[in-house]
Amino acid sequence: MYRTHTNGELRIGDTGKEVVLSGWVQSGRDFGGLTFVDLRDRYGITQLVFSMDENPELCSLARTLGREYVVRVTGIVRERSNKNPNRATGDIEIDVREMTILNASKTPPFTIENESDGGDDIRMKYRYLDIRRDPVKENIIFRSKCGIETRKYLDGQGFIEIETPFLIKSTPEGARDFVVPSRMNPGQFYALPQSPQTFKQLLMVAGMDKYFQIVKCFRDEDLRADRQPEFTQIDCEMAFITREDILNTFEGLTKHLFKSLLDVELGDFPRMSYDEALEKFGSDKPDLRFDMQFTYLTDIAKGRDFSVFDTAETIVGICAQGQADNMSNKDIKTLTEWMQRPQIGAKGVIYVKFEHDGTIRSSVGKFFDDAALLEWKARFGAQDGDVLFVLAGETEKTRKQLSELRLEMGRRMGLMKPGEFKPLWVLDFPLLEWDEEAQRFFAMHHPFTSPKKEYVDQMKSGDFETLKRLKADAYDLVINGNEIGGGSIRIHDRDLQSKNFDLLGFTKEEAQEQFGFLMGAFEFGAPPHGGIAFGFDRLCAVMNNQTSIRDFIAFPKNNQGRDVMIDAPSKIDDAQLDELHLRLKG
Amino acid sequence: MYRTHTNGELRIGDTGKEVVLSGWVQSGRDFGGLTFVDLRDRYGITQLVFSMDENPELCSLARTLGREYVVRVTGIVRERSNKNPNRATGDIEIDVREMTILNASKTPPFTIENESDGGDDIRMKYRYLDIRRDPVKENIIFRSKCGIETRKYLDGQGFIEIETPFLIKSTPEGARDFVVPSRMNPGQFYALPQSPQTFKQLLMVAGMDKYFQIVKCFRDEDLRADRQPEFTQIDCEMAFITREDILNTFEGLTKHLFKSLLDVELGDFPRMSYDEALEKFGSDKPDLRFDMQFTYLTDIAKGRDFSVFDTAETIVGICAQGQADNMSNKDIKTLTEWMQRPQIGAKGVIYVKFEHDGTIRSSVGKFFDDAALLEWKARFGAQDGDVLFVLAGETEKTRKQLSELRLEMGRRMGLMKPGEFKPLWVLDFPLLEWDEEAQRFFAMHHPFTSPKKEYVDQMKSGDFETLKRLKADAYDLVINGNEIGGGSIRIHDRDLQSKNFDLLGFTKEEAQEQFGFLMGAFEFGAPPHGGIAFGFDRLCAVMNNQTSIRDFIAFPKNNQGRDVMIDAPSKIDDAQLDELHLRLKG
Repeated sequence: MYRTHTNGELRIGDTGKEVVLSGWVQSGRDFGGLTFVDLRDRYGITQLVFSMDENPELCSLARTLGREYVVRVTGIVRERSNKNPNRATGDIEIDVREMTILNASKTPPFTIENESDGGDDIRMKYRYLDIRRDPVKENIIFRSKCGIETRKYLDGQGFIEIETPFLIKSTPEGARDFVVPSRMNPGQFYALPQSPQTFKQLLMVAGMDKYFQIVKCFRDEDLRADRQPEFTQIDCEMAFITREDILNTFEGLTKHLFKSLLDVELGDFPRMSYDEALEKFGSDKPDLRFDMQFTYLTDIAKGRDFSVFDTAETIVGICAQGQADNMSNKDIKTLTEWMQRPQIGAKGVIYVKFEHDGTIRSSVGKFFDDAALLEWKARFGAQDGDVLFVLAGETEKTRKQLSELRLEMGRRMGLMKPGEFKPLWVLDFPLLEWDEEAQRFFAMHHPFTSPKKEYVDQMKSGDFETLKRLKADAYDLVINGNEIGGGSIRIHDRDLQSKNFDLLGFTKEEAQEQFGFLMGAFEFGAPPHGGIAFGFDRLCAVMNNQTSIRDFIAFPKNNQGRDVMIDAPSKIDDAQLDELHLRLKG
Repeated sequence: MYRTHTNGELRIGDTGKEVVLSGWVQSGRDFGGLTFVDLRDRYGITQLVFSMDENPELCSLARTLGREYVVRVTGIVRERSNKNPNRATGDIEIDVREMTILNASKTPPFTIENESDGGDDIRMKYRYLDIRRDPVKENIIFRSKCGIETRKYLDGQGFIEIETPFLIKSTPEGARDFVVPSRMNPGQFYALPQSPQTFKQLLMVAGMDKYFQIVKCFRDEDLRADRQPEFTQIDCEMAFITREDILNTFEGLTKHLFKSLLDVELGDFPRMSYDEALEKFGSDKPDLRFDMQFTYLTDIAKGRDFSVFDTAETIVGICAQGQADNMSNKDIKTLTEWMQRPQIGAKGVIYVKFEHDGTIRSSVGKFFDDAALLEWKARFGAQDGDVLFVLAGETEKTRKQLSELRLEMGRRMGLMKPGEFKPLWVLDFPLLEWDEEAQRFFAMHHPFTSPKKEYVDQMKSGDFETLKRLKADAYDLVINGNEIGGGSIRIHDRDLQSKNFDLLGFTKEEAQEQFGFLMGAFEFGAPPHGGIAFGFDRLCAVMNNQTSIRDFIAFPKNNQGRDVMIDAPSKIDDAQLDELHLRLKG
């Protein structure tokens, strides 16, 4: 037997018991005739004591232990004289009578402590040591609990978990597929699913009217920061439902997860249209932990011979309350330079500072007298002590830039409080996005998304400008400015689906070859249906106020898509390539 | 709103309520002025009634409905005059007031009924229709429940569900890998996991001492009947445990699943060594629903000038109780021919029939007089009315053949009762298997399996014959002759693991290249650990007395590894190949 208790379990009430513990040596220290060893496992740390007077042989053995050695001890629980109130087991220690070294350890390349001295690369290479550290360990345990609670809730709502296949068919629409050569079907390939989208729709046709799955998905994208080639979705679909049913069900799931895992009560989620979100926040995933809505000056700021404004489609700004004293000219200059970086690309930032003494300082004093600036002040509802930041230019671009500025000011002003959670449903996304470069429409959500009912006729017969304005029955759940999930009511009519493929530039043959099975299924009694998918990694990170998903994944890949621990991907031998009917190029 | 109730929900107590139902038209029939429609969803069937007298327009519309049309109706629940006791909703019907046809349906290619007229191929092509049928639907719902209960039990035992990666590294040991070319790492490939074996062991090194996952695994094998290229495992690993802990934990899981899903109480599972199982049943997965153990005659049946016996290593038989009257000479001839098929390859089957009147009939009367055969009878403990079947030859082969005969007799004699469940732990498998053809050892379980403690020294220094006799700390769970799962205590010592790779014919360089990360991890404090994996598809099938796993998988592949519904695998375009730095061969 390796243990009677874990290292997080013993309390003062266990005093006098003989126990067996196993774990890793966190640290050891010698005080005169005594040796103290902190023994760790995933449940906690327990202090072991060895006495040179009472058992010199055992105590000498204890003094040979290095960090991360694995030992099993038998001993008696006793009260500590010097209690540690910061540790659950801090009232007791183990008077060790026997010890077996189960395995030795080399000195680990970084310390197994909350604040590690290991950089990212070394942490990833020795991920099995990194996971021993509390912050990573806690994340992984949280993720497990989140999965359990998700299933509990959905099971309680009558959802069936159904596994969909991983070896499916490659489709050029959307992101790039990972493919898998078939040995038994020479020259042919499977693809790994980017999502179970078509399968879950087929399950609706199959009558399994409440489906879910917590499932791995795959995208062969150039990895930006915090993207992983394989990621996990809570994937759901329902039949015989309206949008309202879906929003309610998954608002319920979200509330359940926050309540059961964090003891946080989320109120009812506000809703906002995509158009409104862009107008007020310049983003389809606004962070509502702070207000700082956009205020438009286009109508009153033009015609002052300030060419930046006069040539602009939109003049729009935000009000940073109480920041007049906090932001020096140098701060504003730094902020402007931050906005001018290519990632954001603002030409400049105009500011108006309303000092507490009534003085107005601004970068556009040459063009706007105090009277004009007071008119701005009124429109913003600003007070003395506030600073306005104003951008001008093409509407879409300017809003996006101002959104970045808003978030940056939120960060600087401490308005994005960790532990505060502001969910939001964003509704009524556009159905189609025009791509200037490719000179074609793309589906904003995906090609199976239904237009809102009132747009169906326009979709069938609309001209180019009408098509650009079609609204989809699509929705996103946003929390604290992060897209947690998205979904839509789907098309369930063969002709409408076919029309959508037309609009997306598929020939009839292409549509048939790639999605014929789905359109075929629609001919055999497809029910109205819709669904949603939550990014599971992201949800876990947001619930824990963390910006990176990486430490919620046990074995993540780096930005080159490599697992540096196992050193994958790697070469395979020629015989394997031969069997797959493949050759390397060049 | 599409429905207030499902089609399995309404009872006599709901009489008078106005309800909205949606579903598929199962069937319709007209009786004079009335039209009856059975409306189906996954919850059941409800009878709708339309009256030509009361609402001719609506009734006429109902008469246009075809099978599998999707409709929504509003109506009043009323008591049926002609109740159907075989249906949960059989006491009521719906007096329909409004109806919307939500979608039409072409006539399905097979009937949506329990006994379908669709062959396997057509069922697979239209799987979304096949799943509407009760038998398939119930299997898939059962599977979902089995997953829920598995997680409930393991979560209750403190297990953490941790997702391991799908894009890993190819290793030539074991079955063939599916590989995934890496676009970002030219000429390199990921592999899809055959199991999360090394990752779960790394999680033990990482301190996550109770891991589980219900996870897809992949094997690119030539598909025999009832094998799938992707399949699902309940995958588990524990640290600081002995074999006893693992057997108890997963015996507990199995009992929980049978109790919660089938209301079957399984008693404590018997245990048997691998050697004993082979000796008594000729199989490492004996079906214990019936006894019919092997009886050996080698010592008493040689030396009678019957060359078949005299040259045999082993002479062994079974006793088919009470079959003397049931088996004609023709039956025995047919059975012998069945045993002589190449799949089994017996040279012949010797029988001895003990008639009720004391007569003995046998195929070896020329060599064995009644006195000799009565000696056989005594050894078998046979009675008048029994038949003995005896095989002779090389021990291993003969046992295997006799095992087939035992199972066949079990089937013929109705001894494999559906609904009866006989679990068994098979223990102490050999560590190594010698492959004559390859002239090397293979790991019987896998290369990470530990020898039993008492064999470690022999493993380190043993000669060829000793190595062949090494026992592993490996175990299988068998139910009704099906291998449900298997596992082992793992090696956690770098040197012993390295020695095992030596024995398996790996050079130091190969071992380092393929498994260096694991052996490296063993140097940083690897705890003693072990685990098990259950075949989830098989478990579901066995619990439901079904022989095929295919109908427990929503979208299975055929024997050529094809998904005939979506038509995968398929060709990919040249641009995609280019990006992956690949060319097709030939």
